Amino acid sequence: MFGKIEHIGIAVKNLEEAERRYTQLLGIGPYKREEVASEMVITSFFMAGHNKIELLQATLPESAIARFIDKRGEGIHHIAYEVADIRAEMVRLQELGFTLLNKEPKPGADRKLICFVHPRDAHGALVELCQSI
Amino acid sequence: MFGKIEHIGIAVKNLEEAERRYTQLLGIGPYKREEVASEMVITSFFMAGHNKIELLQATLPESAIARFIDKRGEGIHHIAYEVADIRAEMVRLQELGFTLLNKEPKPGADRKLICFVHPRDAHGALVELCQSI
Repeated sequence: MFGKIEHIGIAVKNLEEAERRYTQLLGIGPYKREEVASEMVITSFFMAGHNKIELLQATLPESAIARFIDKRGEGIHHIAYEVADIRAEMVRLQELGFTLLNKEPKPGADRKLICFVHPRDAHGALVELCQSI
Repeated sequence: MFGKIEHIGIAVKNLEEAERRYTQLLGIGPYKREEVASEMVITSFFMAGHNKIELLQATLPESAIARFIDKRGEGIHHIAYEVADIRAEMVRLQELGFTLLNKEPKPGADRKLICFVHPRDAHGALVELCQSI
Protein backbone atom coordinates (compact mmCIF):
# COMPACT_ATOMS: atom_id res chain seq x y z
CA MET A 1 0.00 0.00 0.00
CA PHE A 2 1.15 3.50 -0.80
CA GLY A 3 1.87 6.16 1.81
CA LYS A 4 1.76 9.90 1.44
CA ILE A 5 2.84 11.86 -1.60
CA GLU A 6 6.57 12.10 -0.97
CA HIS A 7 7.03 14.76 -3.62
CA ILE A 8 5.81 16.11 -6.92
CA GLY A 9 8.42 16.57 -9.63
CA ILE A 10 8.12 19.64 -11.86
CA ALA A 11 10.18 19.92 -15.05
CA VAL A 12 11.63 23.41 -15.54
CA LYS A 13 13.96 25.02 -18.05
CA ASN A 14 15.85 27.31 -15.70
CA LEU A 15 16.28 26.14 -12.12
CA GLU A 16 17.29 29.51 -10.68
CA GLU A 17 14.31 31.27 -12.15
CA ALA A 18 11.98 28.48 -11.02
CA GLU A 19 13.47 28.56 -7.50
CA ARG A 20 12.71 32.27 -7.25
CA ARG A 21 9.17 31.75 -8.46
CA TYR A 22 8.44 28.76 -6.19
CA THR A 23 9.92 30.60 -3.21
CA GLN A 24 7.33 33.31 -3.84
CA LEU A 25 4.53 30.83 -4.47
CA LEU A 26 5.13 28.54 -1.50
CA GLY A 27 6.31 31.31 0.83
CA ILE A 28 9.47 29.36 1.72
CA GLY A 29 12.82 28.82 -0.01
CA PRO A 30 14.39 25.53 -1.19
CA TYR A 31 16.12 23.43 1.47
CA LYS A 32 18.55 21.79 -0.90
CA ARG A 33 19.91 21.48 -4.39
CA GLU A 34 21.19 18.15 -5.61
CA GLU A 35 22.57 16.91 -8.89
CA VAL A 36 21.61 13.37 -9.92
CA ALA A 37 24.23 12.62 -12.56
CA SER A 38 22.71 9.25 -13.53
CA GLU A 39 19.44 11.02 -14.40
CA MET A 40 21.15 14.02 -16.01
CA VAL A 41 19.26 16.46 -13.80
CA ILE A 42 19.85 19.06 -11.16
CA THR A 43 17.08 19.26 -8.59
CA SER A 44 15.87 21.72 -5.98
CA PHE A 45 13.63 20.69 -3.08
CA PHE A 46 10.99 22.69 -1.20
CA MET A 47 8.83 21.65 1.73
CA ALA A 48 5.06 22.09 1.42
CA GLY A 49 3.71 20.92 4.74
CA HIS A 50 4.64 17.22 5.04
CA ASN A 51 5.24 17.05 1.30
CA LYS A 52 7.93 18.21 -1.06
CA ILE A 53 8.13 19.90 -4.41
CA GLU A 54 11.08 18.86 -6.55
CA LEU A 55 12.06 21.19 -9.37
CA LEU A 56 14.06 19.39 -12.08
CA GLN A 57 16.30 20.94 -14.71
CA ALA A 58 18.06 18.79 -17.32
CA THR A 59 21.85 18.96 -17.42
CA LEU A 60 22.05 17.21 -20.81
CA PRO A 61 19.71 17.16 -23.82
CA GLU A 62 19.36 13.34 -23.52
CA SER A 63 17.81 13.70 -20.07
CA ALA A 64 14.19 12.53 -19.74
CA ILE A 65 13.41 16.01 -18.38
CA ALA A 66 14.75 17.72 -21.51
CA ARG A 67 12.72 15.36 -23.69
CA PHE A 68 9.60 15.98 -21.59
CA ILE A 69 9.96 19.76 -21.98
CA ASP A 70 10.63 19.49 -25.73
CA LYS A 71 7.41 17.52 -26.11
CA ARG A 72 5.02 19.11 -23.61
CA GLY A 73 6.66 22.24 -22.23
CA GLU A 74 7.42 22.89 -18.58
CA GLY A 75 5.06 21.34 -16.05
CA ILE A 76 4.24 18.55 -13.64
CA HIS A 77 6.43 15.57 -14.50
CA HIS A 78 5.72 12.90 -11.88
CA ILE A 79 4.03 12.03 -8.59
CA ALA A 80 6.24 10.20 -6.09
CA TYR A 81 4.53 8.10 -3.44
CA GLU A 82 6.27 7.00 -0.26
CA VAL A 83 6.45 3.24 0.15
CA ALA A 84 7.89 1.29 3.08
CA ASP A 85 9.16 -1.62 0.98
CA ILE A 86 9.83 -0.75 -2.64
CA ARG A 87 10.65 -4.31 -3.73
CA ALA A 88 7.39 -5.63 -2.30
CA GLU A 89 5.44 -2.86 -4.08
CA MET A 90 7.22 -3.60 -7.34
CA VAL A 91 6.22 -7.27 -7.10
CA ARG A 92 2.64 -6.38 -6.14
CA LEU A 93 2.22 -3.95 -9.05
CA GLN A 94 3.85 -6.25 -11.55
CA GLU A 95 1.48 -9.04 -10.57
CA LEU A 96 -1.41 -6.64 -11.19
CA GLY A 97 -0.11 -5.98 -14.72
CA PHE A 98 1.51 -2.57 -14.19
CA THR A 99 4.56 -1.85 -16.37
CA LEU A 100 7.59 -0.91 -14.28
CA LEU A 101 10.18 1.25 -16.01
CA ASN A 102 12.99 -0.09 -13.82
CA LYS A 103 13.81 -3.71 -13.13
CA GLU A 104 15.62 -2.88 -9.91
CA PRO A 105 15.19 0.03 -7.47
CA LYS A 106 17.70 2.74 -8.36
CA PRO A 107 19.13 5.65 -6.35
CA GLY A 108 17.19 8.92 -6.72
CA ALA A 109 17.64 12.40 -5.25
CA ASP A 110 17.26 13.10 -1.51
CA ARG A 111 18.44 9.65 -0.27
CA LYS A 112 15.77 7.49 -1.88
CA LEU A 113 15.46 4.25 -3.75
CA ILE A 114 13.07 4.77 -6.63
CA CYS A 115 11.22 2.97 -9.41
CA PHE A 116 8.96 4.47 -12.08
CA VAL A 117 5.64 3.07 -13.29
CA HIS A 118 4.57 3.70 -16.89
CA PRO A 119 2.16 6.66 -17.18
CA ARG A 120 -0.24 4.73 -19.43
CA ASP A 121 -0.96 2.49 -16.41
CA ALA A 122 -2.02 5.46 -14.26
CA HIS A 123 -4.13 7.47 -16.73
CA GLY A 124 -1.29 9.63 -17.98
CA ALA A 125 0.42 10.29 -14.63
CA LEU A 126 4.03 9.14 -14.32
CA VAL A 127 4.28 7.42 -10.92
CA GLU A 128 7.44 7.09 -8.84
CA LEU A 129 7.75 4.68 -5.94
CA CYS A 130 10.05 6.15 -3.34
CA GLN A 131 11.62 4.42 -0.33
CA SER A 132 13.88 6.25 2.12
CA ILE A 133 17.35 4.73 2.42
CA MET B 1 2.43 30.38 3.39
CA PHE B 2 1.28 27.15 1.85
CA GLY B 3 0.61 23.98 3.81
CA LYS B 4 0.69 20.41 2.62
CA ILE B 5 -0.44 19.17 -0.76
CA GLU B 6 -4.14 18.79 -0.15
CA HIS B 7 -4.65 16.78 -3.31
CA ILE B 8 -3.49 16.19 -6.84
CA GLY B 9 -6.14 16.34 -9.55
CA ILE B 10 -5.88 13.84 -12.40
CA ALA B 11 -8.00 14.27 -15.54
CA VAL B 12 -9.46 10.97 -16.77
CA LYS B 13 -11.84 9.97 -19.54
CA ASN B 14 -13.68 7.21 -17.73
CA LEU B 15 -14.07 7.57 -13.97
CA GLU B 16 -15.06 3.97 -13.30
CA GLU B 17 -12.11 2.58 -15.16
CA ALA B 18 -9.75 5.04 -13.48
CA GLU B 19 -11.18 4.18 -10.05
CA ARG B 20 -10.43 0.51 -10.63
CA ARG B 21 -6.91 1.28 -11.75
CA TYR B 22 -6.14 3.69 -8.89
CA THR B 23 -7.58 1.25 -6.36
CA GLN B 24 -4.99 -1.25 -7.62
CA LEU B 25 -2.19 1.30 -7.72
CA LEU B 26 -2.75 2.88 -4.32
CA GLY B 27 -3.90 -0.33 -2.64
CA ILE B 28 -7.05 1.37 -1.30
CA GLY B 29 -10.43 2.27 -2.81
CA PRO B 30 -11.99 5.72 -3.20
CA TYR B 31 -13.67 7.20 -0.12
CA LYS B 32 -16.15 9.30 -2.03
CA ARG B 33 -17.57 10.37 -5.34
CA GLU B 34 -18.86 13.89 -5.78
CA GLU B 35 -20.28 15.84 -8.69
CA VAL B 36 -19.33 19.51 -8.91
CA ALA B 37 -21.99 20.81 -11.28
CA SER B 38 -20.48 24.32 -11.51
CA GLU B 39 -17.21 22.79 -12.81
CA MET B 40 -18.96 20.23 -15.01
CA VAL B 41 -17.04 17.35 -13.41
CA ILE B 42 -17.60 14.24 -11.42
CA THR B 43 -14.78 13.48 -8.99
CA SER B 44 -13.54 10.51 -7.02
CA PHE B 45 -11.26 10.86 -3.98
CA PHE B 46 -8.60 8.50 -2.64
CA MET B 47 -6.38 8.88 0.42
CA ALA B 48 -2.61 8.51 -0.04
CA GLY B 49 -1.20 8.92 3.44
CA HIS B 50 -2.14 12.47 4.56
CA ASN B 51 -2.80 13.46 0.97
CA LYS B 52 -5.52 12.85 -1.56
CA ILE B 53 -5.76 11.93 -5.20
CA GLU B 54 -8.76 13.42 -7.01
CA LEU B 55 -9.79 11.77 -10.26
CA LEU B 56 -11.82 14.13 -12.47
CA GLN B 57 -14.11 13.18 -15.34
CA ALA B 58 -15.90 15.86 -17.38
CA THR B 59 -19.69 15.71 -17.45
CA LEU B 60 -19.95 18.17 -20.38
CA PRO B 61 -17.65 18.89 -23.34
CA GLU B 62 -17.30 22.54 -22.20
CA SER B 63 -15.68 21.43 -18.95
CA ALA B 64 -12.06 22.50 -18.41
CA ILE B 65 -11.26 18.82 -17.87
CA ALA B 66 -12.66 17.84 -21.29
CA ARG B 67 -10.66 20.62 -22.92
CA PHE B 68 -7.51 19.57 -21.06
CA ILE B 69 -7.88 15.96 -22.26
CA ASP B 70 -8.61 17.07 -25.84
CA LYS B 71 -5.39 19.07 -25.84
CA ARG B 72 -2.96 16.97 -23.80
CA GLY B 73 -4.60 13.60 -23.11
CA GLU B 74 -5.29 12.16 -19.69
CA GLY B 75 -2.89 13.12 -16.91
CA ILE B 76 -2.03 15.30 -13.95
CA HIS B 77 -4.23 18.38 -14.10
CA HIS B 78 -3.47 20.42 -10.97
CA ILE B 79 -1.73 20.53 -7.60
CA ALA B 80 -3.89 21.77 -4.72
CA TYR B 81 -2.14 23.23 -1.69
CA GLU B 82 -3.84 23.59 1.66
CA VAL B 83 -4.01 27.17 2.92
CA ALA B 84 -5.40 28.42 6.22
CA ASP B 85 -6.71 31.73 4.85
CA ILE B 86 -7.43 31.66 1.12
CA ARG B 87 -8.26 35.36 0.86
CA ALA B 88 -4.97 36.36 2.51
CA GLU B 89 -3.05 34.07 0.13
CA MET B 90 -4.89 35.50 -2.88
CA VAL B 91 -3.88 39.03 -1.84
CA ARG B 92 -0.29 37.96 -1.14
CA LEU B 93 0.09 36.24 -4.53
CA GLN B 94 -1.58 39.04 -6.45
CA GLU B 95 0.82 41.55 -4.90
CA LEU B 96 3.70 39.34 -6.08
CA GLY B 97 2.35 39.47 -9.64
CA PHE B 98 0.71 36.03 -9.87
CA THR B 99 -2.35 35.79 -12.11
CA LEU B 100 -5.35 34.41 -10.23
CA LEU B 101 -7.97 32.69 -12.35
CA ASN B 102 -10.76 33.50 -9.88
CA LYS B 103 -11.56 36.87 -8.39
CA GLU B 104 -13.31 35.34 -5.40
CA PRO B 105 -12.86 31.98 -3.68
CA LYS B 106 -15.37 29.53 -5.11
CA PRO B 107 -16.78 26.25 -3.77
CA GLY B 108 -14.84 23.14 -4.86
CA ALA B 109 -15.28 19.43 -4.20
CA ASP B 110 -14.84 17.92 -0.74
CA ARG B 111 -16.00 20.98 1.26
CA LYS B 112 -13.37 23.46 0.13
CA LEU B 113 -13.07 27.03 -0.99
CA ILE B 114 -10.73 27.18 -3.95
CA CYS B 115 -8.92 29.54 -6.28
CA PHE B 116 -6.70 28.67 -9.25
CA VAL B 117 -3.40 30.31 -10.17
CA HIS B 118 -2.38 30.50 -13.84
CA PRO B 119 0.01 27.68 -14.80
CA ARG B 120 2.38 30.06 -16.61
CA ASP B 121 3.16 31.59 -13.19
CA ALA B 122 4.24 28.21 -11.76
CA HIS B 123 6.32 26.80 -14.64
CA GLY B 124 3.45 24.98 -16.29
CA ALA B 125 1.78 23.58 -13.15
CA LEU B 126 -1.81 24.62 -12.54
CA VAL B 127 -2.00 25.55 -8.84
CA GLU B 128 -5.13 25.41 -6.69
CA LEU B 129 -5.38 27.11 -3.33
CA CYS B 130 -7.64 25.10 -1.08
CA GLN B 131 -9.18 26.11 2.26
CA SER B 132 -11.41 23.79 4.27
CA ILE B 133 -14.86 25.18 4.95
